Amino acid sequence: MRQTSGYALHKPGDELRPWRFERRDLRPDDVAVTVTYCGLCHSDVHAVDAASDDGTPFVPGHEFVGIVAEVGPAVTRFAVGDAVAVGNIVDSCGVCEYCRAGQENYCGAFPTTTYGGIDRHDGTVTRGAYSREYVVREAFTYHLPDGLDPAAAAPLMCAGVTVWEPLRRWNVGPDMLVGVVGLGGLGHLAVKLAKALGARVAVFTTSPAKAAAALELGADEVVISTDASAMDAQKGRFAFILDTASGAHDPNPYLRALGLDGTLCVLGIPGSWTVDPMSLLVGRKSFASAGSAGTRGTQEMLDFCAEHGVTADIEIVALADVNEAMDRLRRNDVRYRFVLDMTEGA
Amino acid sequence: MRQTSGYALHKPGDELRPWRFERRDLRPDDVAVTVTYCGLCHSDVHAVDAASDDGTPFVPGHEFVGIVAEVGPAVTRFAVGDAVAVGNIVDSCGVCEYCRAGQENYCGAFPTTTYGGIDRHDGTVTRGAYSREYVVREAFTYHLPDGLDPAAAAPLMCAGVTVWEPLRRWNVGPDMLVGVVGLGGLGHLAVKLAKALGARVAVFTTSPAKAAAALELGADEVVISTDASAMDAQKGRFAFILDTASGAHDPNPYLRALGLDGTLCVLGIPGSWTVDPMSLLVGRKSFASAGSAGTRGTQEMLDFCAEHGVTADIEIVALADVNEAMDRLRRNDVRYRFVLDMTEGA
Repeated sequence: MRQTSGYALHKPGDELRPWRFERRDLRPDDVAVTVTYCGLCHSDVHAVDAASDDGTPFVPGHEFVGIVAEVGPAVTRFAVGDAVAVGNIVDSCGVCEYCRAGQENYCGAFPTTTYGGIDRHDGTVTRGAYSREYVVREAFTYHLPDGLDPAAAAPLMCAGVTVWEPLRRWNVGPDMLVGVVGLGGLGHLAVKLAKALGARVAVFTTSPAKAAAALELGADEVVISTDASAMDAQKGRFAFILDTASGAHDPNPYLRALGLDGTLCVLGIPGSWTVDPMSLLVGRKSFASAGSAGTRGTQEMLDFCAEHGVTADIEIVALADVNEAMDRLRRNDVRYRFVLDMTEGA
Repeated sequence: MRQTSGYALHKPGDELRPWRFERRDLRPDDVAVTVTYCGLCHSDVHAVDAASDDGTPFVPGHEFVGIVAEVGPAVTRFAVGDAVAVGNIVDSCGVCEYCRAGQENYCGAFPTTTYGGIDRHDGTVTRGAYSREYVVREAFTYHLPDGLDPAAAAPLMCAGVTVWEPLRRWNVGPDMLVGVVGLGGLGHLAVKLAKALGARVAVFTTSPAKAAAALELGADEVVISTDASAMDAQKGRFAFILDTASGAHDPNPYLRALGLDGTLCVLGIPGSWTVDPMSLLVGRKSFASAGSAGTRGTQEMLDFCAEHGVTADIEIVALADVNEAMDRLRRNDVRYRFVLDMTEGA
């Protein structure tokens, strides 16, 4: 077994604390990655806050970049020293229709997640990348293109690709007016990617304070979504709206903002969605959702980001300061993503 | 003014009774149509049952065929004697984005409906086609192609085109497995049209008694939607499902029956739809709706039906028997559409 160290939750309600633990020896198709930067995703906080005794020790972290330290004998696409990136899926059944389509995120047998998943070979619980090293199947490892700042690229592997896939699925491109609801980790990357794809972009935010920031990111317009008359004025304007807001909220004002054949894609997962039939019917609209990404879209997204110079706006924090960063994330006090620096004190 | 006769509701709760009334003199772009056959749509029954004193006398009927009796001086596409068809929209604003796209059914200023609408020129209430003659703008009049049985073509103008538009919007064609929920006036035409478009078709019905009928119509499969294990077995199979069932029902089992990037299009209008976020997210699915049709799709649908020999399965009833037919429709006792014969006793 391989020794590594990281930060783990040892009992529910506690802080994350340093932990030394083991990674598996390399299987033939495995890559060992020396983690350099790992993004801090809202879902890490949710997982930490929801952890039970059964789930500890728990190591979060599922959007990271690093350098290949060793490769198994069957690995063909990577060599020691390569810059790589890994997201929130590290294995899947490989045979269902979703897997065969490169959409392992929807694997019918459920994909193996980067942390808190069950390894398909030895049944162990996967431990995340708030750690110095990660061992992962080659098939779920991606080349980090030259020219992308590694720290700012780490959030592309979850936040980035999660918004990339719907933007691509709904053919966002030139001559389209696209709405982005929410301006957090996902939303700010959605604005950058939609702009890079050639669309005009309007940001919907509840917070007038975010208007300037949205325009700085490249948005063409900002709509304050709590302003009913501003929302009424959007009626019928949008071809596609990507709603990155989490938690329960009313999707119908966004449906009404769509034009003929428009689609509202929601990324949040509330208890249920209540859809007004007429908001959907008038204009033949679609209410859609999407989650995460598969192998097909992930490398494509990284290559696109390298070509267009798209990365996340980040605040780098030392691994030792992870608890403070998590507290700030609980208060949404981040612009726009924390990234843990694993190169310090290694 | 022009004299005509038909059947009207004179007071709420009453039966329809014979009525002589006036049609407008032809405007330059008007066509006078001698009605030969008019379909009896569920929405006619709903409108009759919901009529208030303000709304009477009320003449239903919005899917009909006939012969051009006279044309206004600016009419260019029709001549006396032409076989024509008219649906449930007879005018619209003509300038909004929907109208310019040939989707007058979604007109931002609301389309003028064939009955119970307000004429955009003289402010009178439109009276439907349970009558001997109808006067309509040329722009909302369609050529009835040779080779289509006129009586069986009448229901194409509402039921037919209402299912045609979503089948086209979601690119139904060869190598697709398409689901049709419900086997009434709309559903039976959805089966025929989807088959004619080259798709494989499965009918979802609550009624085992309808299985044989579905297969006779050309369906490849029948799924009894009240059978939980049969529904479980559909998971992930469909590219597109058209839900023609009216009233409130749970759309989530149909969402789960969709595969990657699949769409469920619902035609019913309940109070609201409750959508399970995970049923939508897993597989990146869309929940959509559509209503009626515009000028662009309507002539296309008629031409397609002529080419492929698609018409409705109908029961012809004399206009004098309209009340009995409405009662049977209230009990869903029809296979699959009643059509009123206006040529008798004229």
